[in-house]
Amino acid sequence: MRKVLECVPNISEGRRKEVVEEVIQAVRSVEGIRLLDYSSDASHNRSVITFVGEVEPVKEAAFKLVEKAGQLIDMEQHKGEHPRMGATDVLPFIPISNMEMDECIEIAREMGKRIGEELNIPVYLYGEAAQMPERKNLSRIRKGQYEKLKELISTERLPDFGPQEMPGTGATAVGARMPLVAYNINLDTSQKEIADKIARVIRASGGGFKNVKAMGVFLEDRGQAQVSMNLENYEKTPIFRVFEVVKREAQRYGVNIVGSEIVGLVPQKALVDAADFYLQLEDFQDDQILETRVFMGED
Amino acid sequence: MRKVLECVPNISEGRRKEVVEEVIQAVRSVEGIRLLDYSSDASHNRSVITFVGEVEPVKEAAFKLVEKAGQLIDMEQHKGEHPRMGATDVLPFIPISNMEMDECIEIAREMGKRIGEELNIPVYLYGEAAQMPERKNLSRIRKGQYEKLKELISTERLPDFGPQEMPGTGATAVGARMPLVAYNINLDTSQKEIADKIARVIRASGGGFKNVKAMGVFLEDRGQAQVSMNLENYEKTPIFRVFEVVKREAQRYGVNIVGSEIVGLVPQKALVDAADFYLQLEDFQDDQILETRVFMGED
Repeated sequence: MRKVLECVPNISEGRRKEVVEEVIQAVRSVEGIRLLDYSSDASHNRSVITFVGEVEPVKEAAFKLVEKAGQLIDMEQHKGEHPRMGATDVLPFIPISNMEMDECIEIAREMGKRIGEELNIPVYLYGEAAQMPERKNLSRIRKGQYEKLKELISTERLPDFGPQEMPGTGATAVGARMPLVAYNINLDTSQKEIADKIARVIRASGGGFKNVKAMGVFLEDRGQAQVSMNLENYEKTPIFRVFEVVKREAQRYGVNIVGSEIVGLVPQKALVDAADFYLQLEDFQDDQILETRVFMGED
Repeated sequence: MRKVLECVPNISEGRRKEVVEEVIQAVRSVEGIRLLDYSSDASHNRSVITFVGEVEPVKEAAFKLVEKAGQLIDMEQHKGEHPRMGATDVLPFIPISNMEMDECIEIAREMGKRIGEELNIPVYLYGEAAQMPERKNLSRIRKGQYEKLKELISTERLPDFGPQEMPGTGATAVGARMPLVAYNINLDTSQKEIADKIARVIRASGGGFKNVKAMGVFLEDRGQAQVSMNLENYEKTPIFRVFEVVKREAQRYGVNIVGSEIVGLVPQKALVDAADFYLQLEDFQDDQILETRVFMGED
């Protein structure tokens, strides 16, 4: 089965359109890449670029993007509201289809090494690809941002790869993570407190599910309360399990679910796993899906 | 979004491997075709070939297959247990992704016309593509098989396209239908009668769901009764609705579902529809699925 890898670099440019375009062009120039989305934020002075493809083209496109951003963005000149430390600030690799997290970790480390050696950009491995536990969390690596990191890079915050002094490109955090699923559940109540209470017990920080961030929201236009969530690992903490527990918790207040929504993109497996659960499927294989067979079979 | 069309021709040759191979080669020779499966049955003296692709290549491959089968198979010499009337006996077109049945009907009629005019093979339109109500059902068209049809073709069973006398290639039924989903539900009882009773009320012939064929089966190895079904239109009569009604009917006997199974291939939409139902999704769009965006977006 063909592997699908996603990459979502964040670059420190959200104002000069021609620069963003040129960086994106470096991605587009690689055959086999599908650019899914990009968006720039002027006050953050930052752009988020999302592309997918098979492993080799994604690696190639990621490298070219980092190279181009390094040539066009000077961190000495950069100002913006979002915390940042490099021209390519973060470079996460995300497994979409037929890939294990271990493969993504390997890709991130190999890519970090190449960026450090060939482009002379300091690289910090973060997320699942971190080699030091305290670097799992990006905010610890980036603390004090570009300006502070410039002082610490040669002493207490040595990079995993690349030079131990700060160039104008800044430093890049290269990592691996699961795709995020933005998932909201709407309740047939106007009491936001109920959504708050459910959010508090369902999320990891409240003793609930690992990989779940949640908060209560009031939807003005519908007059309904919503449990708004980010599911950070849909394989280990699947949508259907979260849905069932929210449904049960809501019942305790005499409240029902009126509907739920997936915001943005979702891997096919997250939905197929839900069908598999509710239909109590036995031994279902992904390659029984016609489209998977058509598009993802080996040629 | 890219369209995916399936074609499942049945040819009247299941013994001479080299002939089957040559017919399949006509399909393989068309770029953009994925051959999903083929199997031959010697006693039936018949082979079933399954291939998919975008519309134009599938049409081209179907035409080439009919042409090649007509050159290599002589119905005057053919013997086999399965009812048959032509070298290419049936040629159904099946919508898989981003296609409506109406488009498949149009493709079938256009293909039937082309086969009749260019290959001089009599064509009967059947299934959803039938132009006469009594030809919806293939068995009515093929009644009496090749030998009898040879007599009737110029009088009471005139073909929709092509010559009104029978050539050695025989005649071909060209049609359109939905993909079949073979779906079984296993019960925690050894009493086959319970599966029989449920099968009887769930299927169309017993006043149950349209598009459902069902029968009770006893699984020796598991000591369990099974409701074994063919779902002939997973859009109008979806898997999850059938599952829920079988579950409820089984409860009436104090019986639970232990699991269900999808045999063979299934369109992605059939599973996504189940996830959509159980998660009560609001406004979910197929192109929110990452794989769909990657593989089926327009280039």
